[in-house]
Amino acid sequence: MKYGIAIFPSKEIQDEANGYRKRYDPRYSQIPPHITLKSAFTMSETDRDTIVDELKKIANESKPFDIHITKVRSFAPVTNTIFLKVEPCEELSTLHEKMHTGKFTVEREHPFVPHITIAQDLDDDEFSDIYGSLQMKQVQFEDIVDRFQLCYELENGSWTVYETFVFGQE
Amino acid sequence: MKYGIAIFPSKEIQDEANGYRKRYDPRYSQIPPHITLKSAFTMSETDRDTIVDELKKIANESKPFDIHITKVRSFAPVTNTIFLKVEPCEELSTLHEKMHTGKFTVEREHPFVPHITIAQDLDDDEFSDIYGSLQMKQVQFEDIVDRFQLCYELENGSWTVYETFVFGQE
Repeated sequence: MKYGIAIFPSKEIQDEANGYRKRYDPRYSQIPPHITLKSAFTMSETDRDTIVDELKKIANESKPFDIHITKVRSFAPVTNTIFLKVEPCEELSTLHEKMHTGKFTVEREHPFVPHITIAQDLDDDEFSDIYGSLQMKQVQFEDIVDRFQLCYELENGSWTVYETFVFGQE
Repeated sequence: MKYGIAIFPSKEIQDEANGYRKRYDPRYSQIPPHITLKSAFTMSETDRDTIVDELKKIANESKPFDIHITKVRSFAPVTNTIFLKVEPCEELSTLHEKMHTGKFTVEREHPFVPHITIAQDLDDDEFSDIYGSLQMKQVQFEDIVDRFQLCYELENGSWTVYETFVFGQE
């Protein structure tokens, strides 16, 4: 089964992101707006128990921290994904780091750029238009991160939460 | 904010339910297939902390149990919702009971009939056709329930998981 690890930001941020995603993201209905900490990886049910224990440890060692969203940016020219940029911070990097070492799969597709996708799979013209206007938007959100979630993928490409890990209490 | 409490069954059952939901359930993309333990209720963030503590207690007092799905049934003539019927069992009733007493809101819309919705909001002709054929289906699933999830509703009507409560370990 395929799993992934994500942070779901506050309802306010999710609602804002969904306003864009509804129009510009074909994966809108497959998972709520999120910050990916570890992208899709495969594991057996046995491995899952080990990983759940590791995630409990990681959550236990973590303290709630603030995140700031101040810009709309894009991964162009690599992909035409447009996202709410989450300002990098040590706490996010540490979480990402801990989930790509030891008992975890260590491959990484990309360098870690914390973000909330709001548009993807656009054709080039759409991308230019949409990014041109979104890039000018004033966005300003703050949120407190105090948990992350282990999710798994269903046959239809949507994701269900397997378990939530709350900081400092597992 | 609006919250609800649900059990997400195994991936196998979710995949089966989604096969029908994709065609027959307009709320297909808003939440993965689930068994509702407590339907939508409103609470403040302060109340949420109290309720989270209560849910931890309930999870802690619970042990994993089996569920059995053996039939497709419908709530007709009350509504034309079609569902995978989850055989009633004491453990499910106890969970439901505990979430409708004490610090929880106590109103209940319906008597508790554990189920996984696979079709809803059909017009009468569609309903007769679809239920006629689904009712004849052989369905046979077993699953072990070892957790439930507190979810909240976004502006677009979709649901995000707030926290997972695993039996016997909170």
